[in-house]
Amino acid sequence: MSKSSKSPLSRAEVWKQLKSHHEQVKNLHMRDLFAADSERADKYCIRLDQLLVDFSKHRITEDTVALLLDLAESCSLNSAIASLFAGDKINLSEDRAALHTCLRAPAKDSLLHDSENLITQVHEQLQNMEQFAGDLRAGKIRGAGGEKFNKVVNIGIGGSDLGPRLAIEALQAKADNDIDIEFISNLDPKELDSVLSACDPNRTLIIVVSKTFTTLETRTNADAAKQWLVDNGCTHLDKHMVAVTTNQSAAKEFGMTDEHIFYFWDWVGGRYSLWSTVGLSIAIAFGMESFRDLLAGAREVDEHFQTESAEKNIPVILALLSVWYNNFFEAESHAVIPYDQSLRLFPEYLSQLVMESNGKSVTLDGESVEHQTSPVIWGTIGTNAQHAFFQMLHQGTHLIPVDFIVAVKNPERQQQQLMQVSNCLAQSEALMLGQQHSSNLNQKFAGNTPSTTILYDELSPKVLGMLLAIYEHKTFVEATIWNINPFDQWGVELGKKLAIQIIQELSAAEPDEEKHDASTQLLMQEYLRRN
Amino acid sequence: MSKSSKSPLSRAEVWKQLKSHHEQVKNLHMRDLFAADSERADKYCIRLDQLLVDFSKHRITEDTVALLLDLAESCSLNSAIASLFAGDKINLSEDRAALHTCLRAPAKDSLLHDSENLITQVHEQLQNMEQFAGDLRAGKIRGAGGEKFNKVVNIGIGGSDLGPRLAIEALQAKADNDIDIEFISNLDPKELDSVLSACDPNRTLIIVVSKTFTTLETRTNADAAKQWLVDNGCTHLDKHMVAVTTNQSAAKEFGMTDEHIFYFWDWVGGRYSLWSTVGLSIAIAFGMESFRDLLAGAREVDEHFQTESAEKNIPVILALLSVWYNNFFEAESHAVIPYDQSLRLFPEYLSQLVMESNGKSVTLDGESVEHQTSPVIWGTIGTNAQHAFFQMLHQGTHLIPVDFIVAVKNPERQQQQLMQVSNCLAQSEALMLGQQHSSNLNQKFAGNTPSTTILYDELSPKVLGMLLAIYEHKTFVEATIWNINPFDQWGVELGKKLAIQIIQELSAAEPDEEKHDASTQLLMQEYLRRN
Repeated sequence: MSKSSKSPLSRAEVWKQLKSHHEQVKNLHMRDLFAADSERADKYCIRLDQLLVDFSKHRITEDTVALLLDLAESCSLNSAIASLFAGDKINLSEDRAALHTCLRAPAKDSLLHDSENLITQVHEQLQNMEQFAGDLRAGKIRGAGGEKFNKVVNIGIGGSDLGPRLAIEALQAKADNDIDIEFISNLDPKELDSVLSACDPNRTLIIVVSKTFTTLETRTNADAAKQWLVDNGCTHLDKHMVAVTTNQSAAKEFGMTDEHIFYFWDWVGGRYSLWSTVGLSIAIAFGMESFRDLLAGAREVDEHFQTESAEKNIPVILALLSVWYNNFFEAESHAVIPYDQSLRLFPEYLSQLVMESNGKSVTLDGESVEHQTSPVIWGTIGTNAQHAFFQMLHQGTHLIPVDFIVAVKNPERQQQQLMQVSNCLAQSEALMLGQQHSSNLNQKFAGNTPSTTILYDELSPKVLGMLLAIYEHKTFVEATIWNINPFDQWGVELGKKLAIQIIQELSAAEPDEEKHDASTQLLMQEYLRRN
Repeated sequence: MSKSSKSPLSRAEVWKQLKSHHEQVKNLHMRDLFAADSERADKYCIRLDQLLVDFSKHRITEDTVALLLDLAESCSLNSAIASLFAGDKINLSEDRAALHTCLRAPAKDSLLHDSENLITQVHEQLQNMEQFAGDLRAGKIRGAGGEKFNKVVNIGIGGSDLGPRLAIEALQAKADNDIDIEFISNLDPKELDSVLSACDPNRTLIIVVSKTFTTLETRTNADAAKQWLVDNGCTHLDKHMVAVTTNQSAAKEFGMTDEHIFYFWDWVGGRYSLWSTVGLSIAIAFGMESFRDLLAGAREVDEHFQTESAEKNIPVILALLSVWYNNFFEAESHAVIPYDQSLRLFPEYLSQLVMESNGKSVTLDGESVEHQTSPVIWGTIGTNAQHAFFQMLHQGTHLIPVDFIVAVKNPERQQQQLMQVSNCLAQSEALMLGQQHSSNLNQKFAGNTPSTTILYDELSPKVLGMLLAIYEHKTFVEATIWNINPFDQWGVELGKKLAIQIIQELSAAEPDEEKHDASTQLLMQEYLRRN
């Protein structure tokens, strides 16, 4: 991942070899690949702790895997991984490190960065979280009127929202106290009004999560929430507000006291931040022990990712398969289907993680890419998905690889869980096998749709940590191969700039005809006419 | 839409013309198209009631529109529309009509079908719904112990779930009584357990919605809910259970009484069914007047769709644009971004509606299609989406057309609503315009990403009805052009069959090695080892 100019990926020798290999194997059917090799399932299966990752239902041969591993090597994947963990400034366009892995390192580790040991800083903040979350859960920290808190409202958006939101929902069964966690993210005031109308201001703690503390949505919602406290007679606002930010002075200005400001660092990207103090609401909901289990799961994957050989390395294999379909089969999307109600928000979380990271067009060398980058990541939970869009996976015309994620245990409802698992397995089997039918094409299934199955016992904090870290690193490996920076997001800037412009003009009821295309003008006039 | 054999679309003259036209215009930038024609915004804008549909930010010229309209005509669109509304058996593979439009026809209309007036039957059921929902809301219908109901649990999946679920969430602000509506769809027992644990069995009414009354998920959850009533000492189960189905005898066998069975018809497809008694929970939540407003909105679109000329016909234009990107630009996905918190489930609803309808590979003539059919439909609400995957829409490599849907009014929070609208407009502007930047490619935005903007005042039942009907008819027009049947779903059958097989084998703890590929065997063994 050096700045030195590389020749474009598409002209690399191994890329050309993959192109011609693709021509040879693209019409092979997985049915035949399974028939030809009785070892295939065992060969293409990786176990890590309680996770099993089966990638045998892919349109790959031994040669495919060998070439993809060559591709990884030709992109200096190993040194890229080393740079990630070492804290090198691999986020070139913003000239900083990407050190989310450091957030889950054990206290005994050390990592010097600008001559400070980051691990020490990280554990200080974890300690602060533990104290605060523990006191809040125990009812020692109370509202201005002396009442215990029963609602915590997390105000944030993007990375300051989706991670905690996912974890709170995913682990809900483990909630062990009577504090409910609510979320407000959208600029649309309906969400704010709906959440706050169900809260008692005397018993509500607002957590404002914003890396810069300047995010439009978050500031607007935080202002409205503060006003709500004032309108309801709250005399000590500071007792009802907490900040999680890298910008302590802005939080103080807003009204938070020192002991209510939790810190994180500029080397934590928003979409990689739930491991930091951004996860405060998770610690409040489930206790710090669970939060540390979440970190431990991610840490286990970090070690696997750093030390395992490429062919048995889960994030590496998943990324190479993604590249295989995206760049050679020209698949434009990838479906994620968790057969686990707890992971309802997982596809949405991944859609941010992957697409914001790898939806890029410029290489690390500052050139335009000559190949496709991230596919669309989408999906929803099974079995619901079977009754929604699976028709298209089975009989549509676009190739869409699938990740199945399935929990196999539910001691309280074994028979229903068995049916749930059976459905998941049946779908990957049907997508792969297909079905011949001579007379009626409506009953023909081409099959040969690839899928990965990730299986675990039950969703625990640790398993959730493992899953999230696997996809983080998968995303990093893709980026390394595509030679792009997964840690910046310049693409969101233009929209922000134009939004400020339009807000000003609509507020003044004076659209500037010079500045906008005719369509945008028409829509602005329509807004004004109706308001 | 006759059964007579047609030559494949891809060999049609107008298709070839579109191919060569695409070659000519594919590199035109919308910036230049706007600069060249000051009338463009007005020309490509359609108004219907309070909806405004702006489709000027598309990569189309006057020639494109003319050719696409020719395409529609060459596919006999007008007669297809007439057949739809006339109740012809256009669902060829299942030999039946698709008459969801009949569900929103006024009582004075008539439509003879198997020598019965369907409209009369429809209005009888509406009358029954009105009576029941009204009595329940008024507390006249009560539980076995004489208590008023405060929870209604809708058990269904796919079309028996997503429509009501969407409407209940979308119109939540209009809920005017203290009956909460909950949903159980997933086979994963966690959803059932989580919902029922928050219900008082004495005050809970279960609605089982299933067209056939045999759906595995719904039957399993209905059985579990019934058992929960029994376990909690309910002596008159029939007072706590309602069925919505075409299979009255199965509902009776399950334990529902005649007055607790609501009927619909085999000519209503699941994903087109919220207009029928499947919408019972909607009528309970908001009253029958609101439900009739929902129908009226759809009806208004039905009339527009039937009578408006193609170039000013919203569903026709949206479908032609979809075909343009899908079949000529080879875009594989289409994003739907409502800037309205109320429409949070809309992308998921559309994903079922569109992909289950048009994810097909066989023509109405029983041949394999030679062209691509439905793209992937995905998305989430703005402004959240801006902080999630918009990076990729702005700077990724895949072409992804976008539908923006935006509410412009919120009298209680005008300034925040103004900011919300401004963000939506800024995104479509930024996606279209792009931004040149000479020195730093990170700040370059190619632009030229097409989008439609649908604008309305506030989400009311009527507006929701209009939006849903627009997308229903858009889906029908796409299917007509692709010469496929949007009303069947044979693709879900193979997975169902294999699931039953695997359920049997796992229940007996005896996987049949002969019947499964090695991967599925391995996963089945893993399940058994862990349970």
